[in-house]
Amino acid sequence: MIIDTVPDLAAIRNAAGRISCWGHRTPVLTCESLDRMTRAQQLFFKCENFQKTGAFKFRGATNAVFSLPEESAMRGVATHSSGNHAQALALAARNRGIDAYVVMPSNSAAPKKAAVAEYGARIIECEPTLEARELTLEKVVNRTGATFIHPYDDYHIIAGQATAAMEFLEEVRDLDVLIAPVGGGGLLSGTALAAHYLSGQARVIASEPRGADDAYQSLEQGRIIPSINPCTIADGLLTSLGKLNFRIIQEFVERIVRVTEEGIVQAMRAVWERMKMIIEPSAAVPLAALLEQAVDLEGMRVGIIVSGGNVDLEQLPWM
Amino acid sequence: MIIDTVPDLAAIRNAAGRISCWGHRTPVLTCESLDRMTRAQQLFFKCENFQKTGAFKFRGATNAVFSLPEESAMRGVATHSSGNHAQALALAARNRGIDAYVVMPSNSAAPKKAAVAEYGARIIECEPTLEARELTLEKVVNRTGATFIHPYDDYHIIAGQATAAMEFLEEVRDLDVLIAPVGGGGLLSGTALAAHYLSGQARVIASEPRGADDAYQSLEQGRIIPSINPCTIADGLLTSLGKLNFRIIQEFVERIVRVTEEGIVQAMRAVWERMKMIIEPSAAVPLAALLEQAVDLEGMRVGIIVSGGNVDLEQLPWM
Repeated sequence: MIIDTVPDLAAIRNAAGRISCWGHRTPVLTCESLDRMTRAQQLFFKCENFQKTGAFKFRGATNAVFSLPEESAMRGVATHSSGNHAQALALAARNRGIDAYVVMPSNSAAPKKAAVAEYGARIIECEPTLEARELTLEKVVNRTGATFIHPYDDYHIIAGQATAAMEFLEEVRDLDVLIAPVGGGGLLSGTALAAHYLSGQARVIASEPRGADDAYQSLEQGRIIPSINPCTIADGLLTSLGKLNFRIIQEFVERIVRVTEEGIVQAMRAVWERMKMIIEPSAAVPLAALLEQAVDLEGMRVGIIVSGGNVDLEQLPWM
Repeated sequence: MIIDTVPDLAAIRNAAGRISCWGHRTPVLTCESLDRMTRAQQLFFKCENFQKTGAFKFRGATNAVFSLPEESAMRGVATHSSGNHAQALALAARNRGIDAYVVMPSNSAAPKKAAVAEYGARIIECEPTLEARELTLEKVVNRTGATFIHPYDDYHIIAGQATAAMEFLEEVRDLDVLIAPVGGGGLLSGTALAAHYLSGQARVIASEPRGADDAYQSLEQGRIIPSINPCTIADGLLTSLGKLNFRIIQEFVERIVRVTEEGIVQAMRAVWERMKMIIEPSAAVPLAALLEQAVDLEGMRVGIIVSGGNVDLEQLPWM
């Protein structure tokens, strides 16, 4: 049984304890005008865009970094990422007082590099290919003895990401549905576990861009279909599903629905305008599913996990 | 004694009761990276940008509308405004099921008209002069019997705006200072009253754009200096102080500090980038005072009232 090997409720509670010292307990916000734009009874938004480093990723990274035994930890942690996981790991490492090594493609946007550097990580540049990233990371790990922290295919990461849904379900009773975006599956698998343990009723649904629908295809075909040449504005959702994530998703996620690029931009803008909060395209993918009626949640109390808010304020998709 | 005529604590508590049925209890957020950019010990942000209609104005309008006796209320309410008060009054009136008449200059931005219309108000256009606005409003009031609700020079409005600081002081103990922006003085006078009644220690300071420093001048000279040809990006702070507001500000506000236009834009952008929330230029004026060290709050616990988040997302000041 898969349930015997995945993080149990105690693992998620332990993660919550580690994270509570360092992260924000993010607010849950509501918005009547968005409610009226959907058929749901009421929408609840768990605002991980207000989390430290601007994304839920800080939860998993913190749990992973603070779960390391002292001996490993003192040699540091490493990852390859150009996105939110890199910032999250950098800050988590700084909080523990250890080194973080981040392999980033040489064409990463300057603001992303600056953010990672600001949190004190050591950046190692490489060619912008997956092969170069993995090879460079391997060299760094061999040289330093740092522990590689995978951005999602890791039970400590999954247990950490699960704490967002745990807080959500503690705060808002009687949610009928939880919706999260899916990229590598760290947030989605954590959300599904938390709902399984903590809610008798909340179904878990994922939303994914049509231009990067490898998780949808994977669930349909019963095996991991790699994400090849994904094309979407939701740059946090480009990766393939992790193995550990996929097993949990297969077991505990009801379905994955898909949305258009136009729908993502419209949902993003609706949240900016109506809720006055900055969300990144990936974080707009669940609301897009409601606005496009990719899933009918008529009359339901719907919990949306707003995954992050890291955008380049010079380049907004509607300008 | 001024204290005998201004709203007492019971009036503010009554306002809170009326508002709680209709408004959000807005969250208080913190941000370590902004803390580090100032000399304060810690900053706390009371997020009225997340209030209904995107601004604190909904509090005062709701209190004013729901304080009207039934007989007056059934004839509706009216105001002249091109900004947040108009939206707030429109929604408050709709909530009570009465008409709202809003006189707006013919050159008002289309999104502002659309927002007011969306909340169900009747818009009456006039020439873009103060004289035309007042004359048109008078005609509307004479024709309909609607009650004019002033945007700030009104004790019901002041008591309503005071509820933001009341919630703030209930939630965050031991604030040393509260900072609010000042335009007509509705928010500032309410904040000062709430601090006077509810906090033994919190000093109240206001921040104002140098290009619209009539409140600063008024406090210096001991009489209301009208705002003539103000020039600032903070378009919520263009108006002159109200009489009722000025008396309260004279008595209970420690000082008014001034900030530059560059400082306002930088503070606004810092909040967007670091806190992932959308604030309008007027709402950035208090943080600008800290970033520009217009006031030294070294080592203090500083409460900032974030007044609103209504901006045109097509026209950002840094683009």
